[in-house]
Amino acid sequence: MKVLVIGGDGYCGWATALYLSKRGYEVGILDSFVRRHWDLELCVETLTPIAPIQQRLQRWHDLTGKTIDLFVGDITNYAFLDKVLHQFEPGAIVHFGEQRSAPFSMIDREHAVLTQVNNVVGTLNLLYAMKESFPDCHLVKLGTMGEYGTPNIDIEEGYITIEHNGRKDTLPYPKQPGSMYHLSKVHDSHNIHFACKIWGLRATDLNQGVVYGVLTDETGMDELLINRLDYDGVFGTALNRFCIQAAVGHPLTVYGKGGQTRGFLDIRDTVRCVELAIATPANPGEFRVFNQFTELFSVGDLADMVAKAGSAIGLKVEVQHTENPRIEREEHYFNAKNTNLLDLGLQPHYLSSSLLDSLLNFATKYKDRVDESQILPKVKWRR
Amino acid sequence: MKVLVIGGDGYCGWATALYLSKRGYEVGILDSFVRRHWDLELCVETLTPIAPIQQRLQRWHDLTGKTIDLFVGDITNYAFLDKVLHQFEPGAIVHFGEQRSAPFSMIDREHAVLTQVNNVVGTLNLLYAMKESFPDCHLVKLGTMGEYGTPNIDIEEGYITIEHNGRKDTLPYPKQPGSMYHLSKVHDSHNIHFACKIWGLRATDLNQGVVYGVLTDETGMDELLINRLDYDGVFGTALNRFCIQAAVGHPLTVYGKGGQTRGFLDIRDTVRCVELAIATPANPGEFRVFNQFTELFSVGDLADMVAKAGSAIGLKVEVQHTENPRIEREEHYFNAKNTNLLDLGLQPHYLSSSLLDSLLNFATKYKDRVDESQILPKVKWRR
Repeated sequence: MKVLVIGGDGYCGWATALYLSKRGYEVGILDSFVRRHWDLELCVETLTPIAPIQQRLQRWHDLTGKTIDLFVGDITNYAFLDKVLHQFEPGAIVHFGEQRSAPFSMIDREHAVLTQVNNVVGTLNLLYAMKESFPDCHLVKLGTMGEYGTPNIDIEEGYITIEHNGRKDTLPYPKQPGSMYHLSKVHDSHNIHFACKIWGLRATDLNQGVVYGVLTDETGMDELLINRLDYDGVFGTALNRFCIQAAVGHPLTVYGKGGQTRGFLDIRDTVRCVELAIATPANPGEFRVFNQFTELFSVGDLADMVAKAGSAIGLKVEVQHTENPRIEREEHYFNAKNTNLLDLGLQPHYLSSSLLDSLLNFATKYKDRVDESQILPKVKWRR
Repeated sequence: MKVLVIGGDGYCGWATALYLSKRGYEVGILDSFVRRHWDLELCVETLTPIAPIQQRLQRWHDLTGKTIDLFVGDITNYAFLDKVLHQFEPGAIVHFGEQRSAPFSMIDREHAVLTQVNNVVGTLNLLYAMKESFPDCHLVKLGTMGEYGTPNIDIEEGYITIEHNGRKDTLPYPKQPGSMYHLSKVHDSHNIHFACKIWGLRATDLNQGVVYGVLTDETGMDELLINRLDYDGVFGTALNRFCIQAAVGHPLTVYGKGGQTRGFLDIRDTVRCVELAIATPANPGEFRVFNQFTELFSVGDLADMVAKAGSAIGLKVEVQHTENPRIEREEHYFNAKNTNLLDLGLQPHYLSSSLLDSLLNFATKYKDRVDESQILPKVKWRR
């Protein structure tokens, strides 16, 4: 089966492309490299030195004999996208190709508009291209657990059955996204749902939690295949960021009270979840939603775990509660379901001290590359 | 109080601008005339001959002594929008300035992207401009009842209290929009809700039903003030369209079974609802939602009423069930709440035989301007 990975040069996309290639899928990567461009714009860099994608793909071929096709361009350019689809003829499309940072989207008006237009138009283009020529292709779209916000009731997977005034219906789960970026994902979800309904397309929305870790079996095969690892205030996410902070002796920056609870997963589960979604596609007309995480943690708990793991290997680690740049509940109920992927056979890599050790070692290995001026958050939600 | 009416050259916007001006508000109109441009693109025209806005405003001044400021430009141009706001300094902004036709948005990919980008970016620009310089200004935004779709439970006003697994929360009402246009309004609602939450802006989302009628006290004062009346397959809406079909001897085109039930209101109530929203603004940080309609009708019922009214004045009227170009439920439960505006004092103009007579007379007066080739729907939802 042919799988096109849009955004295959990014953190999740790269790991996914290699994993699927290794598993026997015929993989193509479509990427515009705009993520690398944004690094330049913000003057930030992945902790790990990542090679140009052409070199990455060459090395992958040399090591495994497997070829991954590369299509360089932007899916907001419909003519380009349509041409690629006709050339590659995918059976499934994995869509990571969006601006994925909440702080980036909150920098200013321009970045908010860029994020929403880029993400919404790219996905609309994809839906129209599929409708026109590949209506049976399965769209596997990366959403985010952040679409749900932090409601005071259990979070179901995409839909909720509501009884109201003696009647009953199963409706899309209400969304309370917390940034211009998260909003763009909510817009996407509504658009994709509609396209499935009227055109009979098949789609799976993977509402992913916060991904941690850097190694997968494939990206660990060679230094040239190494994955990116972001620690800066814009693209860095909790846990990965904490480990790097610990490695360089920077206090772990917990925003506010630290009671913010989120879904998390190991990047080795990200790639497996995508494969599970591909292997059992949604039905024609179905907009299927999976909550893609394996465990719930509060940010404060994570920091404590990293502090403990760091101390065990001799690092001095301090946890610092800093002013929260975001506007979000810092103490709240959070209970989200994630049974759909488990039912398909996902066997989670739960967060362990060995994973933390590995991440801390990675961070220590590359700590000379850290720019400490980029660690603290500069983008604020408040006006 | 100064009120800026964005989209004040359109059907609802024009009637609203004059009504508010008459009621003593200091009114400015911001409009790009892109609606007139789309008429040209599609080669359709309002049944009633509308004058250029400059002439309209001059006549309004001549008749009433009141001046309405005019700002010609597009709110997707942030620099222009920001300049206008600083010049006019509105206390409230009424935002009608969006692409508002479902069939237009469904013509093809380009029109879908145009609709979503135009509507979402225009509204984002407005939110950022308010945040930067007018955080206390009240945004009165036109949404649509079509955001809700046709759930099998009662439709509340914007929010619903859900009990689930023994817990309870009040969440945004789930949305099931039925076109790329309706989706754009759902995107707007989420964006505005977020802006209120994080920046403390105040906004009222008017989820308006299908508007009918052409006369208001103000637009009826003079031929030069006449409002637009659309009957074509793209911009024409039920009831107005039926009356014009009746006038020219065209069968009333009911799409499918005709059991599609929607909220409706007289344009004289539209203008009053907007004033009620302005007069009692939302609180800082509040995203307030009003369902703006006065009665529920099925499309089939409306056609029967027009047929009856037409026959009474000697027209031969046939009701024809045509293939439904849309994908929507044609028989369904529909019960929407609309008490918020009634509680503020709205006294509805319910649909009456005299209103139908007036509309039929209007249609008859201008029937020589009808282009019958534009009546049937050409845009289809199905792929």
